[in-house]
Amino acid sequence: MNFASDNTAAVAPDILSAIARANEGFALGYGNDAATKRVEGLFSQIFQRDVVVFLVPTGTAANALASAHICPPWGGMLCHAESHIATDECGAPEFFGGGMKLLPLSGDGGKLSLDAVTAAIARYAGHVPHQVNAAALSLTQATEAGTVYHVDEIAALAEIAHARGLAVHMDGARFGNALARLRVSPAQATWKAGVDVLSLGATKGGALAAEAVVFFDPARAASMPERRKRGGHLLSKHRYLAVQFEAFFAHDLWLRLARHANDMADRLATRLAAIGLAPVWPVEANLVFVVLPASTHARLTAAGAAYYVRGSDRLVRPRAGDVLARLVTSFATTEAEIDRLVAIARDG
Amino acid sequence: MNFASDNTAAVAPDILSAIARANEGFALGYGNDAATKRVEGLFSQIFQRDVVVFLVPTGTAANALASAHICPPWGGMLCHAESHIATDECGAPEFFGGGMKLLPLSGDGGKLSLDAVTAAIARYAGHVPHQVNAAALSLTQATEAGTVYHVDEIAALAEIAHARGLAVHMDGARFGNALARLRVSPAQATWKAGVDVLSLGATKGGALAAEAVVFFDPARAASMPERRKRGGHLLSKHRYLAVQFEAFFAHDLWLRLARHANDMADRLATRLAAIGLAPVWPVEANLVFVVLPASTHARLTAAGAAYYVRGSDRLVRPRAGDVLARLVTSFATTEAEIDRLVAIARDG
Amino acid sequence: MNFASDNTAAVAPDILSAIARANEGFALGYGNDAATKRVEGLFSQIFQRDVVVFLVPTGTAANALASAHICPPWGGMLCHAESHIATDECGAPEFFGGGMKLLPLSGDGGKLSLDAVTAAIARYAGHVPHQVNAAALSLTQATEAGTVYHVDEIAALAEIAHARGLAVHMDGARFGNALARLRVSPAQATWKAGVDVLSLGATKGGALAAEAVVFFDPARAASMPERRKRGGHLLSKHRYLAVQFEAFFAHDLWLRLARHANDMADRLATRLAAIGLAPVWPVEANLVFVVLPASTHARLTAAGAAYYVRGSDRLVRPRAGDVLARLVTSFATTEAEIDRLVAIARDG
Amino acid sequence: MNFASDNTAAVAPDILSAIARANEGFALGYGNDAATKRVEGLFSQIFQRDVVVFLVPTGTAANALASAHICPPWGGMLCHAESHIATDECGAPEFFGGGMKLLPLSGDGGKLSLDAVTAAIARYAGHVPHQVNAAALSLTQATEAGTVYHVDEIAALAEIAHARGLAVHMDGARFGNALARLRVSPAQATWKAGVDVLSLGATKGGALAAEAVVFFDPARAASMPERRKRGGHLLSKHRYLAVQFEAFFAHDLWLRLARHANDMADRLATRLAAIGLAPVWPVEANLVFVVLPASTHARLTAAGAAYYVRGSDRLVRPRAGDVLARLVTSFATTEAEIDRLVAIARDG
Repeated sequence: MNFASDNTAAVAPDILSAIARANEGFALGYGNDAATKRVEGLFSQIFQRDVVVFLVPTGTAANALASAHICPPWGGMLCHAESHIATDECGAPEFFGGGMKLLPLSGDGGKLSLDAVTAAIARYAGHVPHQVNAAALSLTQATEAGTVYHVDEIAALAEIAHARGLAVHMDGARFGNALARLRVSPAQATWKAGVDVLSLGATKGGALAAEAVVFFDPARAASMPERRKRGGHLLSKHRYLAVQFEAFFAHDLWLRLARHANDMADRLATRLAAIGLAPVWPVEANLVFVVLPASTHARLTAAGAAYYVRGSDRLVRPRAGDVLARLVTSFATTEAEIDRLVAIARDG
Repeated sequence: MNFASDNTAAVAPDILSAIARANEGFALGYGNDAATKRVEGLFSQIFQRDVVVFLVPTGTAANALASAHICPPWGGMLCHAESHIATDECGAPEFFGGGMKLLPLSGDGGKLSLDAVTAAIARYAGHVPHQVNAAALSLTQATEAGTVYHVDEIAALAEIAHARGLAVHMDGARFGNALARLRVSPAQATWKAGVDVLSLGATKGGALAAEAVVFFDPARAASMPERRKRGGHLLSKHRYLAVQFEAFFAHDLWLRLARHANDMADRLATRLAAIGLAPVWPVEANLVFVVLPASTHARLTAAGAAYYVRGSDRLVRPRAGDVLARLVTSFATTEAEIDRLVAIARDG
Repeated sequence: MNFASDNTAAVAPDILSAIARANEGFALGYGNDAATKRVEGLFSQIFQRDVVVFLVPTGTAANALASAHICPPWGGMLCHAESHIATDECGAPEFFGGGMKLLPLSGDGGKLSLDAVTAAIARYAGHVPHQVNAAALSLTQATEAGTVYHVDEIAALAEIAHARGLAVHMDGARFGNALARLRVSPAQATWKAGVDVLSLGATKGGALAAEAVVFFDPARAASMPERRKRGGHLLSKHRYLAVQFEAFFAHDLWLRLARHANDMADRLATRLAAIGLAPVWPVEANLVFVVLPASTHARLTAAGAAYYVRGSDRLVRPRAGDVLARLVTSFATTEAEIDRLVAIARDG
Repeated sequence: MNFASDNTAAVAPDILSAIARANEGFALGYGNDAATKRVEGLFSQIFQRDVVVFLVPTGTAANALASAHICPPWGGMLCHAESHIATDECGAPEFFGGGMKLLPLSGDGGKLSLDAVTAAIARYAGHVPHQVNAAALSLTQATEAGTVYHVDEIAALAEIAHARGLAVHMDGARFGNALARLRVSPAQATWKAGVDVLSLGATKGGALAAEAVVFFDPARAASMPERRKRGGHLLSKHRYLAVQFEAFFAHDLWLRLARHANDMADRLATRLAAIGLAPVWPVEANLVFVVLPASTHARLTAAGAAYYVRGSDRLVRPRAGDVLARLVTSFATTEAEIDRLVAIARDG
C-alpha cells in the first residue's frame, strides 16, 4: 500500500527493456547518438511542430533550466504558492536564474485563477528599475493538488501573460496524467494554448530518470545547450536517456500508464468518498487529498500504508489530530492495494 | 574500432543487471531507500573511514558541486590548464561557485608539478580584498593526458596546499584506472595522501550514469544536500543510482574493468610504438596520445576508426597535416579492435 | 513643498563641509586612510562594543551585502512584504545571495508581528533539502510605513529567531529617525536587543552617499571585505565616505537632523488630522501616510506639492479616485512648507 | 612625494565646487534630476553620437556591470593577464557575469597584440557546449603598464573581435590620460575604432567617486538600469554623481588634468632616465615603471616617498633585492615632488 509518491514506483518494464536493448556497441556521448536524434524527431511529431528538446535527469533541472531561460535575473516568475518550483526545489530556479524571483500566488485547488494572475501582472509591472517586473508565468499541469487546467483556462492565462510580455512555462512533471484526463492532443494542451516552454516529466510516469525541456519556438532555445551543460545536466551516455523517452512515447505507453494511474486515483477517491472520506479537491490526475480522522490515520499507518500528511495547509485546516493526507497513485498501483487501504480505513 | 571516449561504451552487464534487479516494489525517493543506505556504508568501507557521499548523474555535476563547496565565491581553485573542469565543463565550477575563479596552470603530461603549485599559491596569496586568493587545489586522477599521480606526489602537493589553507579536490572521473595502476588502496590514494573531497566517477568505468562526491571529513559536507538539490542533481528514483555503485564495487568490479581498460591501453601503446608511433605521454591509465602522420590518420578514419584529434596542443605541436590523436580504451575494448587498428596504421 | 522622499533633500551643510575639509593632501585609497580608521573607532564607541563596519555608497548595497553574508544561497530571509529589500531593490539580495529567497510576510503598519514570524519560522523549517529553510530575519527600522519597532518588540522577535538559528538583520536606512523617537541608545536598539547586523543609513539622514554595514560580532564579518570589493562597493577615495559618517555622528548631528525630520512629520500629521485627514498609520518617524480625496490630491499637485501616491495598497484601499499619499519629511523640511501644504489641502 | 596611485590624490577643486553648488533645494532621486539629464546629453555631445550612459561610484562596478552585460554567463572575455578586471577586482566580473570566465592573455607592456587575440579567439571557439567560447574582448586604455593603444591598434583588434562575434569593452579608468596623449577625439578613440562599451573613469582623473558605463549602441543598454540597480550601484542622491561629470567635462577639465598628470610622468621618466633609471615600458600615460636598486628603494622609502613595488613580475624580473617600482602621477602631482624624488634617487 504505497501511496507516498509516484516516484516511489519502479521503472515500467517496457522502459527498462528499452534501456537493456540500447546496451550494445558504442555510441557517441553527449547526445550525438542515433537514439537521441530519433527521439528529438519524435518530440516534434508528438507535438505536431518543430520543437527543440533538451533531455535532463531530474524535474528540478528541467524546471530550473527552463525558468532561467525565459526569465531574466531581474525578472519575476508568477507561480502557484504550492507549486513544486516554489516549495520543493530548494531555490533551484533562483539559483539557475541568477537570483531571479518567484512570485507565489495563492489559488484554490492548486490552480491559478485569471483574476489572480491579471492582478499580479499589474502589480509587478512598472516602477523599473526598482521593482522586479513579472517576466514569466509558470503553470503546473497536473497541479500539486491533483487538479488539471482545462485548455481554455491555459489559453486565457497565456493570453493575458503574452499581452504583457510574459513567457509561459508549464511544469509538466505529471503532464501525461493531465493529458490522459483532458483527452486533447499534446499540441492542444501546450503551444496551441500558448505555452512557450514545457518541462515534460517521464520519471513519475514510469521512467528511471528522464525529463525534457521542450521549446516550442526554436529561437527561444538559443544557448540552452550551454546552460544545460554548465548546470551539469548533459549526460555523457545520453542514449540511455533518449531510449527512455522513446519507450515512453511508443504505442502511447505514457498515456496508457497515466490513464492507469488516474483510474486508480478515481477508484480510490470514489471508494473513500463512499465511506465518508470525500476528497478535498477534485481528483483529476493521480493524487487524492483527503482529511483523515486521527484514528483512521493511525490504523492505516499501523497497517503499513505509506503516504504523506500535512498537519495543516494554508487552505485546508483539519481539526486537531486529523491530518490532510496526500495519496498518490502510479502506473504500478493495483486495485487490490486500493481496496485494502479503503477496507482498513473503513473498519474503524 | 571505437576509441573516441570511454563514455561511448555501453553499460557493463553486471551494472545493468543490478538495475534490473532493483526494479521491483516501491522504494522511497530522493535517497531514502535501502539501496542508498547500503551503498553509503559501502563507501565508508572501501575508503576505510566514515565518509559522507553524494551520488549525482554526471561528472560535471560532481566536480562543480565539490568545487563550489570547498572554494568560496571570492576564492580561486588551482588546476591544470588542460583539466576537464577548466576546459570541458562550460564554466560549471564558476557557475556553481558563484563566480569563483579557476586558476589554470600548465604542466607536463597533464600533471601539476610541486614547483608550479608552490609558485601559484605564493602568487595568489595576499593583497586582499583586491586579489582572488587561492583557496583550493584540484588534481585530476588519472589526468587528461592519461598519466597518473603517484601517492607521494599527491601527498607533497596536498601538504603544500594544506599548509597554506587550501582544500584539496580530486577529479576522479578515471579514479579506478589510476587505482588499478597504482596498486594502492582507495584510502592511500586519497585521504591518507591529503585529498579532502573526491569526485569518483563510475560512468566512464562502466556505469550508466553514476558519479559520487565523497567527503572524507563529514564536517565539510554540511549543506551539501541543499547544494545538490538546488543544482537539480538529487534523483528521485535514487535507488537506481545507488545500485549502479553497489554493482560497481561488488567483487572489485570497478578495478577489474579498469584493469582491462588499462591493459588495452598498454597493448595499444606497445603495438603502436612497435610500428614507430610512440605515445606522447606515459600511458598509465586508459588513454593513449600519439602523433599520427596525415596519411595514417586518413587511412584509419576511412576504415571507421573513431577517436578525437587535435590539430595542435599547447605542448605538443605536430607537423602540419599530422594530428595529435587521443585513443581511449574502456572495459569494452577488445584486443581484436586494437590489433585491427594497429594493422591499419601499419600497412601504409 | 517636496515630500517625495528624504533622498530628494540636499546634503546637510556640516557633512558637505567635512568633505571639503578632507580635500587636501594625499590619502591611501580603499579605506587605508586615517579618516576611515577614525570612523571605525567611532562606530565602536557609538555602539559601545567592538564592531566591524563596512562603508558603502548605497542602501541597496548595504542591505544586499549584509543579507548575502548572513543567509546562505539555500536559505530564506523573512521580511515584511512591503520592506525595501522585498519591493525596491530589484532583487539585489537574491543576486548577492546567490539565489537566496526572500520570504515576505504581511503585517500591519509595516511591522512584523511575533505571531507572524513565529508561524513563518515554523513553516520554513525542516523538509530539507527540498524546502528552503528560514535562515535570517530582516527588520526595517523605521519601517516603510513610518512606524517604529520598540526595543522589546525587537528583542522578542530576535529571541525567537535566534532560538531557531536565524540571524537578525536590521535595515536601518532610517535608523536615526527610529532612534530619535525611541530615545534609547544605539546599543539598546540593536545588539542589546538581538540584532546581529545593521545596515545604517546616513544618506536619507543628510549625507551625500554613505551607508554602513555594522557587524556586532566581528567573527561574522569574515570575508566581508572580499564580498564588498567584488560587489564593486569599495570606494577608492574612501576618505570621503568616512568623513561623511564622522560629521554625521559629530555632536549627535544625525540625531538632531532626524529629530527635526520627525518633528516635521509630527507637525504635518497633526495638522492634517485637524482638517480631517488622519494618518493611516501611527507617525513615529518621518513618513506620513494619508488618504487624500481626489480633489485634494489634484489641488496639491497643481500647487506643486511633490509626493508619491499609490492607487491602492494591500492593506489600505482608498475609494476610487482617492489616493494613498506618502509624505516624507527630512532634515531640510521647513514648517512653512508644511503649513503651506496643509493650507492648500484644507481650502478645498 | 606620493606616487602610490592616482586615487590617493584629493578631489580637483572645480569638481568639489560643482558638488557644493549642487547642494541646494530638492532634486528627484535615482537619476531623475536635472543635472543627470544634462550630463547624459553631455556624453552624447562629447562622443558625437547618441550614447546611453550609466553613472556608478566605482571603477569595479563600471567594469563588472559592463562585462556582465556583453558577455553571457557561458562566455569568456579575453583580457590582458595584468588587467585590473583580471587581477584587482576580486572576481567582480565573474560575480556579476553569473560565473562568466575571464580569459587572460599575456602581452608586452600591458598591451594585447593582434596575434595573441587572434589566436585566443580561434582557441576559444567551437566545441560547444563543452567549452566556454570567447564572447567579448576587454582592452584597458591606458594600460596597467602605462602604455596606450593607438587608434589603429584598437581598430585592428576590434575588427577581428567583431568578425567573430565578440563585443569590445574598453576599461577607461585612465581614458583621459590616453586621450590626452593620443590627441584624437573621444569618438575616434572609441566607437569609431570599434569599441562597443566604455568604462569611463573620472575618479582617478580628479573626481570624488564617479565612473560611467557608456553604450555606443543604445540597443545594447537594454536592461542595464535593472542590472545597475540590483548591483546596488544606483545612487539615490544622483545629482552629486552627475555634477562631478559635468565639471569634469566642462572646459575640457578632464583633458587638462590628464595632460598635467601625463606631463608629470614624462618629467619623472626623463629625469629618472637621466640618472640611469630608464623606464621599463614606454611612458605614455601617468604611470612610470622603473627598476630600483635596493639601496635606492631604501633611501626613497626612508625619505617618505610612497609608491608600490613588486618583488618580481611575470615579464620583468629585477635582480634579487632590486624592486620593480610603479610611480603614479596625478593632477595633483607637482614638479617639486618629482624633482625631490629624483634628487633622492640620485644622491646614493
